Amino acid sequence: METGKRLTTNAGITVGVVRKLLHRGARGRLGRILTKAYPVEVARLLSTLKGSERAQAFSILLDECEAAHVASVLSEMSPADSTAQVLALMEAEPAADVRELLEHEERTAGRIMTPNFFALDEEMTIAEAVSALQKRSEEYEMVFYLYVVDKRDHLVGVVSLRKLLTTHPSTQLKRIMVTDVISVNTGADQEGVARLVAEYNLLAIPVVDDEDKLVGIVTVDDVIDVLQEEAAEDLLALAGVTAEERVTTSAARSLRLRAPWLLLNLITTFFPAFVIAQFDWAISKYAVLAAIVTMPMGMGGNTATQTLTVMIRGLALNEVSSVRQIVLKQAIVGLGNGVINGVIGSCAVAVFFKSFYLGLVLACSMVINMLVAAFAGTLIPIALKKLKIDPAVASSVFVTTFTDVGGSLSFLGIASLLINRFPHT
Amino acid sequence: METGKRLTTNAGITVGVVRKLLHRGARGRLGRILTKAYPVEVARLLSTLKGSERAQAFSILLDECEAAHVASVLSEMSPADSTAQVLALMEAEPAADVRELLEHEERTAGRIMTPNFFALDEEMTIAEAVSALQKRSEEYEMVFYLYVVDKRDHLVGVVSLRKLLTTHPSTQLKRIMVTDVISVNTGADQEGVARLVAEYNLLAIPVVDDEDKLVGIVTVDDVIDVLQEEAAEDLLALAGVTAEERVTTSAARSLRLRAPWLLLNLITTFFPAFVIAQFDWAISKYAVLAAIVTMPMGMGGNTATQTLTVMIRGLALNEVSSVRQIVLKQAIVGLGNGVINGVIGSCAVAVFFKSFYLGLVLACSMVINMLVAAFAGTLIPIALKKLKIDPAVASSVFVTTFTDVGGSLSFLGIASLLINRFPHT
Repeated sequence: METGKRLTTNAGITVGVVRKLLHRGARGRLGRILTKAYPVEVARLLSTLKGSERAQAFSILLDECEAAHVASVLSEMSPADSTAQVLALMEAEPAADVRELLEHEERTAGRIMTPNFFALDEEMTIAEAVSALQKRSEEYEMVFYLYVVDKRDHLVGVVSLRKLLTTHPSTQLKRIMVTDVISVNTGADQEGVARLVAEYNLLAIPVVDDEDKLVGIVTVDDVIDVLQEEAAEDLLALAGVTAEERVTTSAARSLRLRAPWLLLNLITTFFPAFVIAQFDWAISKYAVLAAIVTMPMGMGGNTATQTLTVMIRGLALNEVSSVRQIVLKQAIVGLGNGVINGVIGSCAVAVFFKSFYLGLVLACSMVINMLVAAFAGTLIPIALKKLKIDPAVASSVFVTTFTDVGGSLSFLGIASLLINRFPHT
Repeated sequence: METGKRLTTNAGITVGVVRKLLHRGARGRLGRILTKAYPVEVARLLSTLKGSERAQAFSILLDECEAAHVASVLSEMSPADSTAQVLALMEAEPAADVRELLEHEERTAGRIMTPNFFALDEEMTIAEAVSALQKRSEEYEMVFYLYVVDKRDHLVGVVSLRKLLTTHPSTQLKRIMVTDVISVNTGADQEGVARLVAEYNLLAIPVVDDEDKLVGIVTVDDVIDVLQEEAAEDLLALAGVTAEERVTTSAARSLRLRAPWLLLNLITTFFPAFVIAQFDWAISKYAVLAAIVTMPMGMGGNTATQTLTVMIRGLALNEVSSVRQIVLKQAIVGLGNGVINGVIGSCAVAVFFKSFYLGLVLACSMVINMLVAAFAGTLIPIALKKLKIDPAVASSVFVTTFTDVGGSLSFLGIASLLINRFPHT
C-alpha cells in the first residue's frame, strides 16, 4: 500500500538507464531508484529485462530494498515469473516467509496472506504503541489496523490508527480495542475471504491458525485480485476457457487447455447428427429441410447461452432462491422470444421457399426449442450444483446438447408429419 | 470503512426486535442499534422491512446516525431501493450531497466519489492536523490519507496517517507531504479510475474538478464494485447478456433486454441456411450430408467462442500487443484442435456410415472451419475495436456467422465434389 509517492523522474526507471547502472555496477543508486518506484513499475521493469540483467536487478532489489517493498513487487509479477526463480535468488528470512506461504493449500487465506503484519501486546499503552509504530512501521506492508494479541499470540482485538490518534496516551490497548474481530482461518477459501472483506468494507482481515494464533493478514489489494478473477472465472468456464489462458499463453499450452472441452463437445455433436440421420428419408424428399433445421438449433443455442449465463452468475452471487419462480420466469422469456423470432423467421422462410407449411413447422419448432433452452438453461446448472459439480464448467456442454437435439427433433419430427405439404423438388 | 466493530448482540438486529422497537417508538435505542451495526447488516435489515416500517427505520437511520454511516448503508443497498425514495426521505445537507453526485455523468469518477473527505491546509502543523483529526474524523467515511490543499482548495499534496504519527508535531504539512499525488478528474471513466487504484494499490484516490480543486475521493471499496462489474461485463456481453440482467430481473424486462441480440442472431441464421439450400441437389442424393454438416459448424462455433473469449479478455486487460503473433498462435491452436477433432470425429463417422470419403470430407471441413474460427475469433474483435465499436458486444454475432458459413460451405463444397464416392441411399 502506497500513499502517492512516485518516481521523481520517469527517466530514472527506463530500461536504458537501469541497464547502464547495472553495467556500471551502481548497485546503491539502482537500489534507491527501485525503492522509490511503485511496485508495479519495478515489476514491469524486471519483466522487460532479460537473463543475467534480470537476475542482477533482482538481487539488487532483494539486497537494497525493504522486505515489504520486495513483497509488493513480487505480488505484481505474473506467476510465470516463477516463484522458484525468486526463491533461488532470495536468502534467509524473506525466503522463509515465502516458503511458509507455499505450505498452505492453493486458493486459501493462508496462501494469499502476508506474514508481515503489525501486532501489539494487549498490555501496551497507546504511547508505547505509537512509539513501536514509529520505530517499526516501515517494515510492514500495511499498517491501518493494529491487531492486538495476548501473551500467547492469540488475536484478541483490533484498534484503528484513527482511534490511536484520538485516545489519551496512557490508556492501555485492551481498554480501547474492539474485541469482536472478524478473522478467518488459514484454511479458509480465498473467495469466501475476499467476499467477507468486500461485504464489510475492510482494508485487511486477520488470518489465524487452528490454535487461534495470529499468523498473517489478507489486505484489500490482494482481495481485489481474487474478486476480479472470481467474477471472470465462471463466465470463462462457460465458454470452455480456463482462467489461466491469456492471449499471451503459448500455443502448445492453449491447445492442451482447450482440447478436453472441444473433445467433449465433439461427442455431443454426434447426438443431433444422429437425430437428423433418422430423418434422411424426409430430407431426401425435401432437401430444404436440411437448410432450415439449423435455424431452430442455432436459436435454441443462443437462448440457452443467455439463460445459462444469467443462471451461472446468479448461482455464483447466491441470488438463486426460488427455483420454481426462476424456471417459470425463464420459460416465459423463452416462450416470448420463441414466438417473436418464430413468427419473423417463419414469415421470411415461408416467402423465400414459397411454402406456408415450412414456415409453420419452423415457428412451432422455434417456440418448442426456445422453451427447451429455458428449461435446460435453468435446471441443468441447478442440478449440477446439487450434485456438487461446478455448474460453470459442465453446464454448457449438456445444455447445448439438449437444444441441438430439441431443435432438430422438433423441426424434423413435425416436418415429417407434414412431408406431403411441402413443394416437390 | 470499518475496523471491526460489529453488533454486540446478534439478537439486536433481528427483524423481530427492530419491529418491536419501531412499534414502541424507541427511536433512540433503535438509532444506537443501527449505528453499531455494520452497514451491510443495516442494508439487509432495511430490505427485509416493508412499507411504513421501512420508511420509519429509514428516517431513524437518517436522524440518529452519522452521515458517513448512512452513506455506507446506502452504498450497500441495491439500486432497486431507489435513490428517489431515499432523496424523498432525506433532508438538507446529505440530500444535497447525493444530488451533487447525481449531477455527474454515469460511470464517471464524479458519480462514484464520496464528497466526505478529510482535507487540510498546507500551512497547518502536524499538531494542528492531529487535533483537527481528533475533532472531526468521525464525520468522514475514511481517513487514511490526509489530502493537503492550498488557500484556493487546489490539491497540492498527500500525507499518510502513518507519516503523521512519525513526524515531529511542529512540522508543517507542506514540508512532509508528497507532492506528486495521483488524482483523477470528475469526468474520468470509472473503469480507468478503478484500474489506477488497483494497479497502484491505493486505498483512495482524490478527485479534482476542471480547476484542479479537490471535490471528493473514490475509496477502494467502491473500486472493488467497479472492478467486479467490469470483469464480468465483457464476458456477459459476449453471451448476449447485459450486466443489468440478474436471475431476479422481471420476465418482461429480461425479454426486452435479450430480444435485440436474439433478433440479430436470427438474421445471421439465414446465412448458413442459404448456403445449405444451395447444395440441395447433393443432399437429395445423399441425405446423411445434412446430418454431418452440423458437426463442423458446431465445432467451429465452439472454437470461435473459446478464441473470442480469450481475445475479449485480452483486449479488456490491454494484453494485446502484437496482432500478427496472436493471430499466428490462435491459427496454430485452431489447426491443432482441428486435426485432433477432425481425425477422431471422421473415424467415428466413417465407421458408422460405412464411408471413408464421408470421414475424409468431415476431417478436411473440420480443419478448415477451425482455422476460420481462429482467424475470425481474433481479427473481428481487433477490427471492431479499431472501428471504436465495443468488441464484447458485437463480436460473437459476426464470428459465429463466419463459422456457420465456413462449416457448411467447406463441408458441402468438398462433399459435392466427391458426391459419386458416397454410398447410394
